[in-house]
Amino acid sequence: MIRAAVVGATGYAGAELVRILSGHPDVSLSVITSRQYAGVAYDTIYPALSGFVQMDCIENEPVAICKDADVVFLALPHKVSMDMVPALLDAGKRVVDLSADFRFKNREAYEAHYQPHTCVHLMETAVYGLCEIYGEQVVSADLIGNPGCYPTSVLLPLLPLVKEKLVDPATVIADCKSGVSGAGRGANQTTHFCHAHESFKAYKVGGHRHTPEMEENLSLCAGTPVKITFVPHLVPMTRGMESTVYVTPASGTDTTQVRQCLESFYRNKPFVRLLPDGRFPDTLHVKGTNFCDIGWQVDPGSGRLILLSAIDNLVKGAAGQAVQNMNLMFGFDETVGLSGVPYPL
Amino acid sequence: MIRAAVVGATGYAGAELVRILSGHPDVSLSVITSRQYAGVAYDTIYPALSGFVQMDCIENEPVAICKDADVVFLALPHKVSMDMVPALLDAGKRVVDLSADFRFKNREAYEAHYQPHTCVHLMETAVYGLCEIYGEQVVSADLIGNPGCYPTSVLLPLLPLVKEKLVDPATVIADCKSGVSGAGRGANQTTHFCHAHESFKAYKVGGHRHTPEMEENLSLCAGTPVKITFVPHLVPMTRGMESTVYVTPASGTDTTQVRQCLESFYRNKPFVRLLPDGRFPDTLHVKGTNFCDIGWQVDPGSGRLILLSAIDNLVKGAAGQAVQNMNLMFGFDETVGLSGVPYPL
Amino acid sequence: MIRAAVVGATGYAGAELVRILSGHPDVSLSVITSRQYAGVAYDTIYPALSGFVQMDCIENEPVAICKDADVVFLALPHKVSMDMVPALLDAGKRVVDLSADFRFKNREAYEAHYQPHTCVHLMETAVYGLCEIYGEQVVSADLIGNPGCYPTSVLLPLLPLVKEKLVDPATVIADCKSGVSGAGRGANQTTHFCHAHESFKAYKVGGHRHTPEMEENLSLCAGTPVKITFVPHLVPMTRGMESTVYVTPASGTDTTQVRQCLESFYRNKPFVRLLPDGRFPDTLHVKGTNFCDIGWQVDPGSGRLILLSAIDNLVKGAAGQAVQNMNLMFGFDETVGLSGVPYPL
Amino acid sequence: MIRAAVVGATGYAGAELVRILSGHPDVSLSVITSRQYAGVAYDTIYPALSGFVQMDCIENEPVAICKDADVVFLALPHKVSMDMVPALLDAGKRVVDLSADFRFKNREAYEAHYQPHTCVHLMETAVYGLCEIYGEQVVSADLIGNPGCYPTSVLLPLLPLVKEKLVDPATVIADCKSGVSGAGRGANQTTHFCHAHESFKAYKVGGHRHTPEMEENLSLCAGTPVKITFVPHLVPMTRGMESTVYVTPASGTDTTQVRQCLESFYRNKPFVRLLPDGRFPDTLHVKGTNFCDIGWQVDPGSGRLILLSAIDNLVKGAAGQAVQNMNLMFGFDETVGLSGVPYPL
Repeated sequence: MIRAAVVGATGYAGAELVRILSGHPDVSLSVITSRQYAGVAYDTIYPALSGFVQMDCIENEPVAICKDADVVFLALPHKVSMDMVPALLDAGKRVVDLSADFRFKNREAYEAHYQPHTCVHLMETAVYGLCEIYGEQVVSADLIGNPGCYPTSVLLPLLPLVKEKLVDPATVIADCKSGVSGAGRGANQTTHFCHAHESFKAYKVGGHRHTPEMEENLSLCAGTPVKITFVPHLVPMTRGMESTVYVTPASGTDTTQVRQCLESFYRNKPFVRLLPDGRFPDTLHVKGTNFCDIGWQVDPGSGRLILLSAIDNLVKGAAGQAVQNMNLMFGFDETVGLSGVPYPL
Repeated sequence: MIRAAVVGATGYAGAELVRILSGHPDVSLSVITSRQYAGVAYDTIYPALSGFVQMDCIENEPVAICKDADVVFLALPHKVSMDMVPALLDAGKRVVDLSADFRFKNREAYEAHYQPHTCVHLMETAVYGLCEIYGEQVVSADLIGNPGCYPTSVLLPLLPLVKEKLVDPATVIADCKSGVSGAGRGANQTTHFCHAHESFKAYKVGGHRHTPEMEENLSLCAGTPVKITFVPHLVPMTRGMESTVYVTPASGTDTTQVRQCLESFYRNKPFVRLLPDGRFPDTLHVKGTNFCDIGWQVDPGSGRLILLSAIDNLVKGAAGQAVQNMNLMFGFDETVGLSGVPYPL
Repeated sequence: MIRAAVVGATGYAGAELVRILSGHPDVSLSVITSRQYAGVAYDTIYPALSGFVQMDCIENEPVAICKDADVVFLALPHKVSMDMVPALLDAGKRVVDLSADFRFKNREAYEAHYQPHTCVHLMETAVYGLCEIYGEQVVSADLIGNPGCYPTSVLLPLLPLVKEKLVDPATVIADCKSGVSGAGRGANQTTHFCHAHESFKAYKVGGHRHTPEMEENLSLCAGTPVKITFVPHLVPMTRGMESTVYVTPASGTDTTQVRQCLESFYRNKPFVRLLPDGRFPDTLHVKGTNFCDIGWQVDPGSGRLILLSAIDNLVKGAAGQAVQNMNLMFGFDETVGLSGVPYPL
Repeated sequence: MIRAAVVGATGYAGAELVRILSGHPDVSLSVITSRQYAGVAYDTIYPALSGFVQMDCIENEPVAICKDADVVFLALPHKVSMDMVPALLDAGKRVVDLSADFRFKNREAYEAHYQPHTCVHLMETAVYGLCEIYGEQVVSADLIGNPGCYPTSVLLPLLPLVKEKLVDPATVIADCKSGVSGAGRGANQTTHFCHAHESFKAYKVGGHRHTPEMEENLSLCAGTPVKITFVPHLVPMTRGMESTVYVTPASGTDTTQVRQCLESFYRNKPFVRLLPDGRFPDTLHVKGTNFCDIGWQVDPGSGRLILLSAIDNLVKGAAGQAVQNMNLMFGFDETVGLSGVPYPL
């Protein structure tokens, strides 16, 4: 039984961590923090959890956190994470950071899209926590940069094919769609019900900060610098992310070869479900789960390969993957705490 | 470990039974049936359950069902249930019937609203499976008439107060609201997305068949015949049911007395959550759970008591309560298989 | 052609006024104001109106407003309205106030639920702008207190029956449901998509300030003080309001008598649609329109009368009724600018 | 004043035609037909239109239709249209066909994706009714093949750029998203509220029949055969269509040149709204209107051009464009009946 702290427990990713860890048989959720709600009973903020989480939030204070935790999940904004990580590592804690601060190896890329990095020495040792790809390194990591939701949904279908050179990484276009919870708990015009409902729209066209995160991982895998086109969209639903990825296949790659590659790669990966030919992922089918469902099709007219994936942006796209990383780090079965039966609807 | 059959497994209540029983540690889901989908793999109908339910549906055939099941859940239309129950009981099976066929003691009431009853001898021995009220009789029952969703949400806040004579049962008005899943899996104009979305409406005004079910239970509890007013409404959401019940309190009954009565009655009832003063239930907080959240307020102007409850119509309103009944019947802890941590949103 | 100003043009009621007045053939929308968005082009706030409203918002300044307007619509918070009205009237403008400040005749009732009234002399001369009831007085009014959305939806089905003594006003219970736009444009946890979606809940139980507004009008109509029970609820949709009103009919009142009374009263009232027996209103059918659809049923079991109404909370519940009042005040046909064909879905 | 018939008036496109034509000042809606609802009062099917459309549906009978109509709108399934068109033309009627039957010049393309064409002689004379592109030919046409919703949303941003050779048509990828009304009024599992809500998914990947329709028009414009990649998706909203189109710009084409080309092309086209730099279309902003809002961005990393458009699939994507075609055919102003002020939300 290990003790876990969730720092930033009242944002949506934090709340989802609280949910998963409260039900995790090998974990005691020992600390929850919130700048805004310090001193407040958690179940007044999330009444659904009444009877399950009977704790107050405390301040984001490293000393107090370290006293009661073996593993610390940081569900904080970029930059705030970076400021807290060294103290936690120095205290011997293992850290899963859900911000972008430790997702990059390339300092220039990070700094071009975020801000100056103040823990450069940790960028190299941190492990990018895309479990199905970097699981072996996760096991012994002290610091995980938990992947962004969009990169998770785009990289899982794409990386095995890039690795096997079945597709041309220079041709990648990722058209991605997210539920409104991806915009966070902050109340603003974007998240206002009356603006999001009956609305579908693209945002941050050509400028979303998950682009360099995907590019770094694709480049590492391809062994050559890769630029992609990525457009995120907002869907009038609470949870869910669908990615439609277009890529030119290597000469001769057909639907069957894609299946062979993905089946071989994801054999024994419990959270990737490859769909039968002719079926395509639906966010409803992964809602509340840690699954990434993947389907694909070579377009008969244009010859392009169309890859489709669906995840729950708050689970496999954030909190679930973070717990999956923790499971690997502490030698638990990868699925513990994440294996609830999905809702049929 | 007991073996459970779900008869009518592809309707929404059936699918929810499949979900809960698949994750129940003391149950092996051994049989699933469907007239429409016999021979079809279950996860092609509900792809969310891919990897969890690897069975085909079989026909609704009592002999085949009995061979592999200790307990049988019937998620069938009225009348169809009644035709199958005797064979199951004769084979020594215990039965939880989700239709209305065994919810009534009063044959006239049943027949006035449904059709002639063909198993009158079982009406008396069947137990009305509102666990928090009739739990003691459930333990030894062979046949459960699992309550309707509306009656569950109305009776739970009301019955303790009627029993203690804190309210006048002749004054009950129940204004109830249900998510669209309550209309079932059948595709028709009512359940069409474009007709349900951005739509709020009453239906079956003054004529819903859950009225006599509530009246029978209120009458039994009050010791006198009770007529109520009940209007159901349809809400543009998938899951959830909220009931706002208006009743005239007995002279002197105030908000505090209501609390004392409900707290005393529901002490040790794990699935009823009584809210603090000034907070009222929200369907979002019980989504996917077996909880019934209850709040109340004496209206300062009119003096009427306003009782409010929220349940998930498919869980506490159907499949969850059915499993809760099974747990009691087989001596399991009441909460087994129903204790997943709720989603914060 | 008259010139109209909308003060507070960026809130939802204000935006709906802008929409209607922009398409009104006898009106020139000449001034739009906003404290928050002064100096900003209106179509950057509401891009749907791009090409239709090519004006910037100005400050809420009475002198500037009066210079360019014959009629002034105030879509302001309570109290702010009251502070601006005298200057507008002194300048000879006619005013339709959408706040609660001039809806009451009874100063004590207003002050008990709002704040001290600083224009008491205007409370008496202001006309309560429920057009179908007080239309004759509206014609010559200089100041209209435009009704609240809930009172509009509750009073329209009820007042004719109270007037004819077909129902007992002491027994009124109004269970009302509103779309999220009723909570306004302000971004907060209530209006956040992820909290409103898949959520149905009551709010301000026993304490909503529309209660005294309804009570005053029912009391005036009944000729005796009336207290009612009113519970508002929030529905996961943008627009729409449904009210289910329960009342004890006078001895002998049946469904047919209700029809005769309502048909007689609403003959020649173009915005009330009485539904055939057995059909009940649906918010979807009045979306975007100034209609109030009304249905009813005497409950066969309890004998109570159930009245049901549906309006668009932003149109008949706010901006549409305000323009209807203006039409009457300026001698236009009551329906001008409000007669667009409804959307079938 | 001309007389118009809507054949197939109860489907969603038909109902939207009924709405628009009922409010059109130069048109008398004289005939509405429905196979399923012949003899039924229209406002029992679409109660929103009560008071506006007081007609019964009649059978789809050409003689009866021709007797009372000058222009006939066919909102019928493919093939059924083709069987009716010759009789209507022979009777001297002008026809706007909303099916795919007369959208193609290339018989092979049509027959490969639909069925044998039985009016080949009319394929050439029919005009593809994308008004902004083919408006001059529409004026004198007797038969219009009204464009599909997806082609409308993809071709409007794309064709001017192809024509000016600012983009390479061989690189077009169209990722399109439609509200559920696009799936039609038929009730099935796809349109069931509980399956569409909280669901985002692709469908007919690599096989949608709007692909050849787009390809034919792009090929004609480019002067060379063009193959594109097109993936449609379903969004949990009633109305709206967003298309995100990726294309490789010709060397040197930048954001400004795209603006110049589109502004030049769409000058004096009242239904195309080009958005300012940095703003992108939102389906909410065109809901219920005949607008096509267009935005774009050259992706700084990959250099690809991203074009974004939003329409209401039932209006500009179907009924609105059909009426726009009729306006051109009969010499009315292009915007008559289509110029209602949009709803701000």
